[in-house]
Amino acid sequence: MMRFIIFGAGALGSLFGALLSTRHHVLLIGRKRHIKAIEKNGLKIEGKTKGIFYPETKWDGKKYDLVILTTKSYDTKKAVKQIMKKFGRIPILSLQNGLRNEEIIAEMLGKKYAIGGITSHGATFLQPGIIFHAGEGDTIIGELNGKITKRIKEIAEAFNECGIKTIISKEIKKEIWKKAIINSAINGLTSILKCKNGDILKNRYAKELLKKICIEGIEVARAEGIEIGEEIVKKTVEVAEKTSDNISSMLQDLLKGKKTEVDEINGEIARIAKKHGINAPLNEFITYIIKAMCGIWVDLPLIQSRRGP
Amino acid sequence: MMRFIIFGAGALGSLFGALLSTRHHVLLIGRKRHIKAIEKNGLKIEGKTKGIFYPETKWDGKKYDLVILTTKSYDTKKAVKQIMKKFGRIPILSLQNGLRNEEIIAEMLGKKYAIGGITSHGATFLQPGIIFHAGEGDTIIGELNGKITKRIKEIAEAFNECGIKTIISKEIKKEIWKKAIINSAINGLTSILKCKNGDILKNRYAKELLKKICIEGIEVARAEGIEIGEEIVKKTVEVAEKTSDNISSMLQDLLKGKKTEVDEINGEIARIAKKHGINAPLNEFITYIIKAMCGIWVDLPLIQSRRGP
Repeated sequence: MMRFIIFGAGALGSLFGALLSTRHHVLLIGRKRHIKAIEKNGLKIEGKTKGIFYPETKWDGKKYDLVILTTKSYDTKKAVKQIMKKFGRIPILSLQNGLRNEEIIAEMLGKKYAIGGITSHGATFLQPGIIFHAGEGDTIIGELNGKITKRIKEIAEAFNECGIKTIISKEIKKEIWKKAIINSAINGLTSILKCKNGDILKNRYAKELLKKICIEGIEVARAEGIEIGEEIVKKTVEVAEKTSDNISSMLQDLLKGKKTEVDEINGEIARIAKKHGINAPLNEFITYIIKAMCGIWVDLPLIQSRRGP
Repeated sequence: MMRFIIFGAGALGSLFGALLSTRHHVLLIGRKRHIKAIEKNGLKIEGKTKGIFYPETKWDGKKYDLVILTTKSYDTKKAVKQIMKKFGRIPILSLQNGLRNEEIIAEMLGKKYAIGGITSHGATFLQPGIIFHAGEGDTIIGELNGKITKRIKEIAEAFNECGIKTIISKEIKKEIWKKAIINSAINGLTSILKCKNGDILKNRYAKELLKKICIEGIEVARAEGIEIGEEIVKKTVEVAEKTSDNISSMLQDLLKGKKTEVDEINGEIARIAKKHGINAPLNEFITYIIKAMCGIWVDLPLIQSRRGP
């Protein structure tokens, strides 16, 4: 039995916490209202996973094996600081969006405490205590130095035995880049167009932009020393197809008037490009325009009629 | 007295036709419902200009001195063809948006028949027969070869004596570029952000993009052999300020589900860049995303809350 902390138990963190709690010790740390609801009625999961789960919500004072970090990526620094203060130095596995989380963890705690990860499970927060498991997908984890360590095997095994299909990668940074590129295109475009993921594929101009954004991402990754092939374009189209009825997390944030992760996804790609003396104008434009969208009160009527592309 | 045809008498064309009809012979050619309403009740102008005007709506069979072309820029070719067929070769003054109108006229009719022009009058179509004159501004006209000809002086004089403040330019192509760059930024951003012109200036990210789009336009103009200084950024900000409560023509089209002029403004800048082997990624992105907006049915709720930039 492993001992996990889920730090930032929103939709995804709660889903992981619920599944892991069936065979492991799990401490959920999240918003007060959500935790209170779980203490009262348990953690209810609907959708692909169905059940009521009972993770811990209070620290028993003993040591943990791993923190699974699932906060928004703009909160990573703050989260690591809080974890350090309360629990001391424990390995942290980031399952967040964005490109810099495991680097921030490594800088703050030391390299050996950082573990990289991505997941393509989809989950949405229905109400305090209740999560919707929208879509299943792989989870990929890996040590930053690429080694297949004892702990990474233990984590993967714990995840797998709880129904979280998990693969160990020797190139986790590359996997993180791939996910960031996919997100940069799908989240970026659906947020600007205010459409569902699948709608991008129904319009040839949007589809063309999806391709251009991916290719820009490939070039920036290459400048950073990470080779990602053009098949990422196809993969992005596949993800948009597979999640066609979903509203991307960035658009969800935008519609709720919340801060988005555009700075940590598209903005980070643009910053890395600059660092290497190249440009990423599309990612830069997307970053600025989505930040502008957060700041401008939109009081005009919506587009009412459809025109063929 | 001069004899004018207004071809494509929408909001702007009707305004010019109304004003010119007070001292000149004006034939209005426009949509059937609009023309029918004018025949019945006259052409009513509200706003900065107030009155009922009586331009002609039927050809008296005599020759005209000038066609003033005010169709949408994606209809220029079709319009010139119709003009040629019905009235033969007459000089055509384009007061349209976009970068290629006078070139299309020159290619189709011969160089000496094309006259370039821009105007910053604002007008909106209220209903058939009724136009709102939203804002006054300069009109600039010029021969493509830069010469101050007899006809250009006559046209400017006719315009001025009817209250249309008009300047003759020896560098009309440069003026057309300036207006296109201003439009590329203001129309482009307000269409994506679905906001009024002035809202761009209230948000630092949107304002930064406005600047970047202008600078990209300056670079493409330079590649085309036209020197436009960085003061165009300031000028664009001024235009957005002066028209802060206006909904840009591109956004109006988008909101009505009509075809926009993005291809003739931003798209043309991107195409000219390509022709010279440079890139205009922002204008290209804007072109694609606005064309995607026309094609995607937006059925999501609007952004509801405001966040500081």
